[in-house]
Amino acid sequence: MAIGSAFRSYKNTADVLKQAKRSYLDFNATAPLREQARAAALAAFECVGNPSSIHAEGRAARAIVEEARAAVAALAGVSPRGVVFTASGTEAANLVLTPAISTAHGAPPPARLIVSAGEHVCISKGHRFAPGLVEVAPLRGDGRVDLDALAAMLRRGGRAMLALQGANNETGIVQPVAEAAALAHAAGGLVVCDAVQLAGRMSCKASELGADFLILSAHKLGGPKGVGALVAASPEIAVAEPLLRGGGQERGARAGTENVAGIAGFGAAARAALAEMADEARRLGRLRDRLGAQISSVAPDAVVFGATVERLPNTLCFAIPGIRAETLVIALDLAGIAVSSGAACSSGKVARSPVLEAMRIEPDIAAGAIRLSLGWSSGEAEVAHFGEALAGIVFRTARGRVAA
Amino acid sequence: MAIGSAFRSYKNTADVLKQAKRSYLDFNATAPLREQARAAALAAFECVGNPSSIHAEGRAARAIVEEARAAVAALAGVSPRGVVFTASGTEAANLVLTPAISTAHGAPPPARLIVSAGEHVCISKGHRFAPGLVEVAPLRGDGRVDLDALAAMLRRGGRAMLALQGANNETGIVQPVAEAAALAHAAGGLVVCDAVQLAGRMSCKASELGADFLILSAHKLGGPKGVGALVAASPEIAVAEPLLRGGGQERGARAGTENVAGIAGFGAAARAALAEMADEARRLGRLRDRLGAQISSVAPDAVVFGATVERLPNTLCFAIPGIRAETLVIALDLAGIAVSSGAACSSGKVARSPVLEAMRIEPDIAAGAIRLSLGWSSGEAEVAHFGEALAGIVFRTARGRVAA
Repeated sequence: MAIGSAFRSYKNTADVLKQAKRSYLDFNATAPLREQARAAALAAFECVGNPSSIHAEGRAARAIVEEARAAVAALAGVSPRGVVFTASGTEAANLVLTPAISTAHGAPPPARLIVSAGEHVCISKGHRFAPGLVEVAPLRGDGRVDLDALAAMLRRGGRAMLALQGANNETGIVQPVAEAAALAHAAGGLVVCDAVQLAGRMSCKASELGADFLILSAHKLGGPKGVGALVAASPEIAVAEPLLRGGGQERGARAGTENVAGIAGFGAAARAALAEMADEARRLGRLRDRLGAQISSVAPDAVVFGATVERLPNTLCFAIPGIRAETLVIALDLAGIAVSSGAACSSGKVARSPVLEAMRIEPDIAAGAIRLSLGWSSGEAEVAHFGEALAGIVFRTARGRVAA
Repeated sequence: MAIGSAFRSYKNTADVLKQAKRSYLDFNATAPLREQARAAALAAFECVGNPSSIHAEGRAARAIVEEARAAVAALAGVSPRGVVFTASGTEAANLVLTPAISTAHGAPPPARLIVSAGEHVCISKGHRFAPGLVEVAPLRGDGRVDLDALAAMLRRGGRAMLALQGANNETGIVQPVAEAAALAHAAGGLVVCDAVQLAGRMSCKASELGADFLILSAHKLGGPKGVGALVAASPEIAVAEPLLRGGGQERGARAGTENVAGIAGFGAAARAALAEMADEARRLGRLRDRLGAQISSVAPDAVVFGATVERLPNTLCFAIPGIRAETLVIALDLAGIAVSSGAACSSGKVARSPVLEAMRIEPDIAAGAIRLSLGWSSGEAEVAHFGEALAGIVFRTARGRVAA
């Protein structure tokens, strides 16, 4: 099939999905629902009650929520009391990024927010910190936060909340959260870790990360879309001003009838992800390296971002000089393969990647950045499918014809 | 079974749910999931993509969301563009109760919020209006908002946002929204209608209600818990400042990956509820009147709240003098019947009902208020079960022994 005619029929989703074979390599955008999560959500659908109701149906719904809370708490290594369910990681970020943090020892609230230049847009907006109170900590060229620069920023100015992601959604680069947290705490600050991409792939225990708060999302680890959590590392610390007010749900931290089925699915996915994590990390790391080898074989000049530092075992972000990301995403989609160019959370718009910019990647190279991300349902077949498809596309384009 | 021993075993939810027969009469707290909603959510669970992704999987997820948006828009009689999905009615209320409203004709933003005294706690908090800018419009003794008092309040002071519920969650009393909206609009104001209890039971077309915004919740009409919507009556009006910021989802109005399965379930439930509404209103009204007759027969001095004005066809709120609500809720639960005392959204706490207080019901009577609420799965069997159980309880208590 020529690229031209393929482009003309691109909007016909139904036809594309009818292809004999689809390979989903976009787990960092969202993961397919795990069987355990589907079963838990289905069981919760059968439970009639509102968790706030005191009759038996209500108490049964409450029990489902609390069982899931314990599972999510175990993933984060905290007490279930530290878990506040939200509708997304984004909501958790909006909830926690506020000067209104209370601590048991009465520490003064943070006066400013420091975010790394690699944060997801749901963090970098700063939310309930006034725009003038948000500072950006630079990344080094390897994609990790510049700890020297961070230390200098922490020395200048008042008590800070530091928001540092566990791992980047585009590159998979793992941040030195524990080291950065030690710096922040030494300066009297607080640490929020967006662990959305880390969770279920590497340890996201709050104590190991040194974070005061973690942000989690169910659907990135095989739970349902539309559920997240804000996790407090200890009962000593909490958000003092809820974002959603109304009924007293979530111990007053977040009003609104609980998404019982979604929460049940989150709990089941968290339990499964935690149980399989070590084995899956090895398995996905091997598949990821196979993907990398295929890319190098087809395009020896391909650039892999973050290759020199620790990355999530499931993520590979690369660019082939001369092929633009949107061209490759569409051509791969037509060949049956779902991949992403940069973060997927921006309503399908293809924008320049802020994280690659922060890593000072040449714009021409960054414009070709494609993210491959694997997960529980990924296997050899998807890897082989990708390799064949990429070879065909690169061969057909001869690098110039599709480069637009 | 003596009430005493029953109380001792009350916390054993599993035993209670194993009863041969349970009758759920608490639809205003939450409705059992409709078959159509379950099927739609299940189908959506099979869809892997993130609606923000541009590949086929992403576009398929987007199509599910947009199909549901059209169904919810049809329920509210608006363009799909007017529907913003949220995680709850509460979130929709938190989103819309703000001075930051933009209109196509550039009207000045509302300077204050007027809420009726019967509003749900998720409205009466006022949210992004400063506490000093929230005024309470009184109810008449019959439970309807006092339109004369409202008109006087609208005359005094700046441009107002009026928040008036379609129907009260506890009493089912239907508010004169269209009349109140005409007054508010004549004074240059805006109207938000919490239609959470109205939707699917009576018409909640924005144009008939005269509302600029509607608040909806999926789970009250048989959709999943954890999904709601803010509905704008026309493309001319919108919330100018999102509450949840991050990615550009919901046309920038509400960030966070969409709850695709929940939204699909909402759409299916809205479609089913709208199709059945007229027939169901008649059927449930008859069942409700049978419940009322049973109560009068067992306790001729029982008080039914709102009996003199228009009520939702599915709701009956009553008190039997001398029997406290919490006592009756627990005794009925033990007899297999799920009912509620007052609003269920307050974490199971039994508090005095603000709406009955606003209606100037004697505290002794209000303390006995029980809400029965019916829906799609309710039938003769539940009504008969309730009648028998109530008779037994009232007989055993002899009014004094359980009255605590």
